Amino acid sequence: MTKIAFVGAGNMGGAVARRLATGDHDVHVFDLDPSAVERCVRAGATAAASAEAAVKDAAVVITSLPLPDHVRSVWADLAPRLTDGAIAVDVSTIDPATADALTEPLDETGHAFVHCALGKTPAAAEEGAIPLFVGGPAKAVKALRPLLDRMGDKTYDFGTPAAAAMFKLVSNMIGMTNVAVLAEGYALARRAGIEPDMFSEALRDTGAFSFQSDVRLPWIVAEDYAPRFGAALAAKDVRLAVDSAARWGIPTPVASQGLAQLVSAVAHGYGSEDVVAVHKLVAPAAETEERP
Amino acid sequence: MTKIAFVGAGNMGGAVARRLATGDHDVHVFDLDPSAVERCVRAGATAAASAEAAVKDAAVVITSLPLPDHVRSVWADLAPRLTDGAIAVDVSTIDPATADALTEPLDETGHAFVHCALGKTPAAAEEGAIPLFVGGPAKAVKALRPLLDRMGDKTYDFGTPAAAAMFKLVSNMIGMTNVAVLAEGYALARRAGIEPDMFSEALRDTGAFSFQSDVRLPWIVAEDYAPRFGAALAAKDVRLAVDSAARWGIPTPVASQGLAQLVSAVAHGYGSEDVVAVHKLVAPAAETEERP
Repeated sequence: MTKIAFVGAGNMGGAVARRLATGDHDVHVFDLDPSAVERCVRAGATAAASAEAAVKDAAVVITSLPLPDHVRSVWADLAPRLTDGAIAVDVSTIDPATADALTEPLDETGHAFVHCALGKTPAAAEEGAIPLFVGGPAKAVKALRPLLDRMGDKTYDFGTPAAAAMFKLVSNMIGMTNVAVLAEGYALARRAGIEPDMFSEALRDTGAFSFQSDVRLPWIVAEDYAPRFGAALAAKDVRLAVDSAARWGIPTPVASQGLAQLVSAVAHGYGSEDVVAVHKLVAPAAETEERP
Repeated sequence: MTKIAFVGAGNMGGAVARRLATGDHDVHVFDLDPSAVERCVRAGATAAASAEAAVKDAAVVITSLPLPDHVRSVWADLAPRLTDGAIAVDVSTIDPATADALTEPLDETGHAFVHCALGKTPAAAEEGAIPLFVGGPAKAVKALRPLLDRMGDKTYDFGTPAAAAMFKLVSNMIGMTNVAVLAEGYALARRAGIEPDMFSEALRDTGAFSFQSDVRLPWIVAEDYAPRFGAALAAKDVRLAVDSAARWGIPTPVASQGLAQLVSAVAHGYGSEDVVAVHKLVAPAAETEERP
């Protein structure tokens, strides 16, 4: 059985590591948090004492880390330690410049780098029911196929690691900005005396309908801020998208304002709440006062 | 047969007037543009020489006009001329302050005022396949039921004319802002070398999916700017929503930026093109140059 190293077993990474481990893959997991490793061990993975120990003799090395800087520094450390022919895979949400930067040192050591951004939620990842946004050398992607088929239910191949990274950021940029303007619209509707149920139902019949209005509007209505996708994480992703856009000379006035709302949510102390907490920024007294 | 007066037979109003006329209602139409009236006459309506002539003895008077100011001035003129018991209906896209302002003079002459905002497109209105967002006295709405059932396939009753007006504006505010950020995301994806088909397909599998990404993304991809909903009209609707929000103390930072993009589209001469023309504002050289 081929050894797979998994470095970083947070919410999303841990779910993927467990999905592979329960699929009879030989998964060796390292995380700075021992309890995160423990959750994977209970699913059949092997605990590694360090990232270096995890990657030793591994045919596939997968990283899942919070920030692009973490991804760069971990790979700078791991690249020289990879076994000959090992495939390097990152499943973190990173920007295209980071994806490009990772390709180079791995090229030097003769290892293919594949970026595989993950869609949907940790709960869906646990079941292998997520889309994978992949980019890297065709041969490496082909070799990873059995693994990818276990990790997700659909693979989209964008050709390059940078394109795959950008796609994920763009999808979050659009989705999160849709949440921000949805929250504004809901606040306005409430101020006009429109009942939440009526608003939700009628909105389905308009051009305002979206994945976010379908999934997140009920949470806004219920003032349910439990984090499915935290405001701080969302702010990070949209910042990476908007940063890349600025570097590339693409104006993103609307997404930048969406970003500003996510940053405001964090500044107000809502960073670990779901992104729907942006609603609190725009609905100060809307639901209690009569309109003038 | 009950006489129905229709004042204003533009794209949307004309479609509704024809829908009623082909449904064997006795519809008398006036519009400043004789060709607009002619199109209704061909569908079985009667041409009226003036708005005053149209409303004479009409049991229901319907206005469909471009701007709130037109609606106010036409009703100031028509209110004293209505037959006893006639119901006043406006199907224009107006702001809640206008809806409130109309109720008053009509109350004085003893006429119920019902606002009935129209969803979807003129083509759908022609078939009676549109949602209706209604508000007004319950008795009047009930009396209008046979008419409403011919005009649309679903009626949402928001209670007051102002709430119905606000709902329509909010739905356009959200929908049009979704278009603006979608255009930004598409420009960014193209710059990253992502193929349009791949972008469209993968986006369906993410939280970025929306009515607008479903319907309008193909037009953005095809650079098809034929106006289904013109940028100038959209700018007007979103301006009314954002104006109302400012009056009511609801911050709309993201929608305001969406409005700025629509206004920019108009300023660039794209006002009579579809709202997807906002894409031209954010994709200057994205599709021709390699990214750095």
